[in-house]
Order: sequence, then C-alpha cells, then structure tokens
Amino acid sequence: MTPVPAEVEKSSRNVVVNREPFIVPGFKAAAAASGMRYQNRLDLALIVAETPAIAAGVFTTNRFSAAPVQVCKEHLRDSRQINAILVNAGYANACTGEEGVLRALDAAQVVADALHIGRESILVASTGVIGPQISIEPIKQAIPSLLSDLRPDGWDGAARAIMTTDTFPKPASARIEIGGRTVTIGGIAKGSGMIAPDMATLLAFVCTDAAVEPAVLKHWVQRGADCSFNAITVDGDTSTNDSLLVLASGYAKNPPIADMGGVDSQKFGAALLAVLKDLAKQIVLDGEGATKFIEILITGAPTVESAKSIGLTIANSPLVKTAFFGGDANWGRIVAAAGRAGVPLVPERSVLYFDDVCVFRHGAPVRDPDIEARASQVLRQKEIKVQLDLGMGGVQFTTYTCDLSYDYVKINADYRS
Amino acid sequence: MTPVPAEVEKSSRNVVVNREPFIVPGFKAAAAASGMRYQNRLDLALIVAETPAIAAGVFTTNRFSAAPVQVCKEHLRDSRQINAILVNAGYANACTGEEGVLRALDAAQVVADALHIGRESILVASTGVIGPQISIEPIKQAIPSLLSDLRPDGWDGAARAIMTTDTFPKPASARIEIGGRTVTIGGIAKGSGMIAPDMATLLAFVCTDAAVEPAVLKHWVQRGADCSFNAITVDGDTSTNDSLLVLASGYAKNPPIADMGGVDSQKFGAALLAVLKDLAKQIVLDGEGATKFIEILITGAPTVESAKSIGLTIANSPLVKTAFFGGDANWGRIVAAAGRAGVPLVPERSVLYFDDVCVFRHGAPVRDPDIEARASQVLRQKEIKVQLDLGMGGVQFTTYTCDLSYDYVKINADYRS
Repeated sequence: MTPVPAEVEKSSRNVVVNREPFIVPGFKAAAAASGMRYQNRLDLALIVAETPAIAAGVFTTNRFSAAPVQVCKEHLRDSRQINAILVNAGYANACTGEEGVLRALDAAQVVADALHIGRESILVASTGVIGPQISIEPIKQAIPSLLSDLRPDGWDGAARAIMTTDTFPKPASARIEIGGRTVTIGGIAKGSGMIAPDMATLLAFVCTDAAVEPAVLKHWVQRGADCSFNAITVDGDTSTNDSLLVLASGYAKNPPIADMGGVDSQKFGAALLAVLKDLAKQIVLDGEGATKFIEILITGAPTVESAKSIGLTIANSPLVKTAFFGGDANWGRIVAAAGRAGVPLVPERSVLYFDDVCVFRHGAPVRDPDIEARASQVLRQKEIKVQLDLGMGGVQFTTYTCDLSYDYVKINADYRS
Repeated sequence: MTPVPAEVEKSSRNVVVNREPFIVPGFKAAAAASGMRYQNRLDLALIVAETPAIAAGVFTTNRFSAAPVQVCKEHLRDSRQINAILVNAGYANACTGEEGVLRALDAAQVVADALHIGRESILVASTGVIGPQISIEPIKQAIPSLLSDLRPDGWDGAARAIMTTDTFPKPASARIEIGGRTVTIGGIAKGSGMIAPDMATLLAFVCTDAAVEPAVLKHWVQRGADCSFNAITVDGDTSTNDSLLVLASGYAKNPPIADMGGVDSQKFGAALLAVLKDLAKQIVLDGEGATKFIEILITGAPTVESAKSIGLTIANSPLVKTAFFGGDANWGRIVAAAGRAGVPLVPERSVLYFDDVCVFRHGAPVRDPDIEARASQVLRQKEIKVQLDLGMGGVQFTTYTCDLSYDYVKINADYRS
C-alpha cells in the first residue's frame, strides 16, 4: 500500500468537511424508483458530468469481483473521459457469469444512448443480492425521469437510492482555493457491513470540478483510498462490488494541477483525503449493529504495512469488538490480537492506551489501583481511541472500526430466513 | 505447515475414538481445588508419568506467549524426560513480565520437590485471566492432596479442573496394536473461544504408553496438530497460552517405533491424529455460543496452504457464521469469503456444495427452482458440511468451525462488566 505522505495527512485534518447538502459545479445527479427489486423506493442513481471528466477508480480485491467492477475497469482503461455513473441497488450483479457482464454493458449502453455518447464513457455500479441477474427493462423505463430530474442538488436523492442496509445517506464535501479559483470536492457513499452479499457493499462516488491531470488524480485517489476506505473495517469481509469512483471535470477552471509534488497538488490531495475519510467514517458509524466508533492508532511501527496489519487484526477481532460493545476495558484481548498479527513485535517495548489512560507498559499491566476505573470510564464513551505504541520505529497508521453487538448477529442471521 | 500424509489421514478415520472415561497404563492424574481464584471448584490438575516419558509440544504462535509456554519450551529443549504436567485454571500467567516467568518456574519447582526430581522434568500450563500473577502458596498447599489422589482413572477430574468457559469436560482415547502389544493414547483438552484472555485458551494434554523415538513422536505431534487443533477456529483469535503437550512413556513395552515411514509409525500417527482431531472437534462443539458444527472441506486446491487459507477465511467470516446461525443457505457469503483469501482462484472453475447439494458452479448459481429449498434443508441440520472445489489441483484440507450466535456476543461482552 501507498499511504498519503504524513504532511498531507496532517493538513487534511484541517480541511473543513461538510455533511450538509452540496453541489459540485458542473455535475448533476438524480434518483429514481425502477421497481427492479424493491417496491416504492429509490433504487437507481445517475450522476452526469456536464463537461466530460477524467476519472480514477479503486476496486475490490475480491477474486469474485462483480460484473460492474469488471466493466468499470475496462472503461477506465479504454476511455479518456467519463460522462456519467449509473448505480443500482437491490442486485449486486456478482457471481452472475458472462451473462452478468453483458447486462452490465447493456445498462451502460442504455445511459450512453440517452446521452448520445459512447458506452465506454459510462461507469456502472451495483449493490445488493449476489447471484440474480439485473433486469435492463426497468432501467430503460426509468431513464426519461432520471434525465429530467438531473439537478445540481440532486445528490441527496442519489445518496438515498444507493442505500441497502444503511440507516442514513452519507454525503460529504469540501471547498478549497486553487490558483485563485474555488474548487469543490463532493461525494456520496454507502455501506454498513464491509460486505453483506445480500444487502451491502461499499460504494463511493466523488466528483470535483478541479482541473487536474489524470496521473495526479490517480495518485491521490489511490493514496487517499488506502488511508480511508482501506483503513476501515466493520467485519473484515471484502465485498465483491466495492468501488470508489472519482470524476474531475475541470469546470472550476483553476490552472490544471500537473506537478505531483507541488503545493496545489498537495492541497488537492489533502482535501480529497479529508472527504474520503469523512465518507469512510460515516460507513463505520453506520456499521451493522454498531453502537461505538473506535479509532485504533498504531504508533512506533517499523513500516506502515506492519502498523496496518496490527491495526486491522485488532479491529477485526470478535473478542475485542464484543468487549467494546460490553464496555469492558479488556486490554488483554487487544494485546493478544496484536500478538497474532504476524509482526515480530517485542512485548517489552509495547505500550497501550485507552484515550490517555496507559493500561499496559513494557510487557506487564500498569500497577495502579485506579487504572481499571479510569479505563472503564473511557470505555463508556461513544467514541474511543486506542493507541498501541510498538516502540520499534517512527511510522504510524490509523484504522477505524465499530463494536460487535447483538444487532450485528440479528441483521446478518435473520435477513433472508 | 506440514500436514499428515493423505494415507495416514485416511486411516485415522477408521480409528475408534472413545469419549468415555479411560486410563493410560503407567500414567496417573488428579485434581484439586486450590482456591487461588475460584471458590469451591477444581482448578488444579496434575498428570504424572510413573516411568519418565519423552515429550513433544506445540505452542501458540502469539508474540505475547504466556510465561508457562516459555517455561515448557525451555524444559522441552533442555530435558530428556518429563515426569509431570501441572495445570492451573483461573489465571493465565500471560503478560505478567519476568515476575510471571519466575512464578511459573516456582510452580514447576513445587511439583519437582514433591516428586523428588529435577524442575526441568516438569511442564506447566495455565488458563484464565491475562495480567494478574499466579500465587504459589495455594499450589503448595494443594500438593499433598494432589499426590494422594493420583489415580489411573483420575482424568475426569483433571479434565474438569482445566475448564474455564467450557461447558463440558473433553476426554478422548484410542487403542491400537503395535508389535503385538496394546498401546493406548488418551488425553484431555479445554477451550471454547480460540482465545478469550479472561477465561479461555486451548490446552490439550495427551499421554501414551507407546514406546516411540523422540523424533518420531515430534513428527506426528506437529503434523497431527496442523490437521486438528490448527484446523479449527471459533473466532479466529489465538490465545497467549495455547499448548498441546504429548507424553510417551514406553510403558506398553512395544518394540520402539523408530522408523518414521514404517507401518508402526504410520499406525501410531493415525491413532494420535484421530485422538487429537476428536479433542479438537469437542472444542468446536463447545465453542462459545455455538449451535452448529460446520466442516469446511476445500478440494481441488493447488497446495495445502491455499486450501487451508481459504478454509479458515470462510470459517472466520462473521457473515458466513451468522448465516449458519440463521439457517440461511447464503452461498454468496461463502464464495465472497473464498474470494478474499489471497489465493488466485478462478471463479469459472469453482463449485460449491452444502452436503451434496450443488448451489454454485463455474462462476454462476445453479439454475434449479428446488435448489433454495434443498439447501435450506441442509442448513437446518446441527452438523453441516460445506465443500468448495477450486478445480485447480489435487490437494484438499478440512477446517472445522461453529456458528456465531447471540450467545457468543453475550458471553464475551458481558463477562467482566
């Protein structure tokens, strides 16, 4: 993985990210209820760039990647510009064989015909049940209303249309100045289990009017994803459909960002990261059955890979997650999870904190009669920060997760049966 | 990992393993209530070999290995013979620093003094809460009654004394003929979460009166562990204390098994594997909150590592486990978990079965209107077999796991708070 440089990561923390309704000049969005699977709810979202945009994407690493993921990869490789993204909720179009790919291409063609452009300028995404084929006819019938409903402030409907087990829509936007011009980065996401092939998936669509060279956009999208969507976990599962798509139209008419290491590039990277991170955090907050938001900061690591490996092992441990749910300051479970992450850490150098309460230092529990009470106090909070310092180097990495509650079991055990 | 050869694995299936009370000629066991942490319950187990035994062990790979694990490794390296194993339940003696190691050595010394032998001939094991130190005084005071209670049929008490969140004691034994002599392999285990630093850990102690060369014993213990205790998972966590200790005394006076590839060696290996596997299965059956026992057979794999990696990824997926709890024939979750195991599998070659019901073949769901009903029927069983054929080679590996229920969350969220 290639993380965002520390200085860009730091300045991204100062970017003001808004979760209110937003517009990105030069983009429009709309939603419709196609009836493909659900009755009487929005299930199709269309995002259109008024002027063609360059695009970058990050996709699931699952070997069973869904048909729309395959189509997006092909279109991003073959096409120099992207005009629109079509998303459907209800069926994931995953594990659907060649027929599934043909239908994903058909869905893109329907939009291409309506916009009078080439099919390879359309990206598609799906979320929902694995296995069944999507139907093209409901999409065709919804196209006229989608086109007539396209509006600059249509993002709220689009954010709702892509929801499945999500309990709230997830928008985020930020504004920065580049070369004297205001540039907007705004997007929406969905997801609540990292995967739930029936009903969930992680999807995010971010648009910006920034003028930015394709290589610079790709650079920041990949690094930003590694420090946001690739740093969160609800249950450790990876969907067949996970997709982050970022479009940049240049509509803001700022001097094009071409120098990767320049000030404008770093500023753009920081703002993009801030928006991606905010969307990612909203997904954790809406984690299936989640009652708590947990930030796991690994410091003193020799490499970012080792820090991430330990962070994710802790974040995915069912014993750690149930202890958080129970409000139990069970540091032994965190230490034990860290110890099995495959990193040659040294117990005698490790130090563990809940917020600012140090509970474990250099291989042994901190001897202080008040520790248990102070740690338990932290565990009662809705947002908890865990810091494990490895004492082995100067690298750090933050992972975000939620607790594991009865409702997680309920949502995932009861859904189909 | 080094699995048991296929032919030995096959013949191990024909070994009759008994879960009734057993004796292993030449070994005695006893239990006592020391009061170290629990009131009025057995919490100390002592196993003594009447004639010194050779020994082999397999231990946790957790970097935070507990003090008794460190002591066992040292004694197994330095000592040519082992006379006894002392086990305490209540405190894990893990994350206890140098003081913890000194106390584990003291515990061994107490037994050594009582038996008038060297400390390095004693092995020790602990299970319970991480962090607190064990107390030596309660052990000292319990020694006289432990010694006077030592009996060939004392295993049931020992199996109960090492329990923590376990709901039943776990014995297993088998008998085979080697060189015209009857050889017994018998042992006990405990464990119900793979780890729960408060209350659980995987411990197994197996004794045999077989005469077997140390290298041959070590060979079969390591391979046997890889196909039994290292092939099960309740929650994917690895304890700081996990230990399998196997003693072989030669009391049966069979011609010593020295030829690793010989018939007797293979017979012994098969019987040992059968006992280890049975103990491992009992741990899964007693998995925290478990309501179902699931066997995951990966076939057609290119290597045993890839088969095991896919099997464990499926077995540890919270989404797969909650679907089993809900009785949901949710094959999409299994396929999606397999797809993120890091193995370059080919969707078009994969075939998935629930028992003998094929639900997914060559990248797409099986088209049959009865499939859902037939698969759901299988999912209502208490024991379920899942087979995923990768179509990529001739290797197979079996993993065992249980479902993830409300009670798992309850047990692990509510324990300390």
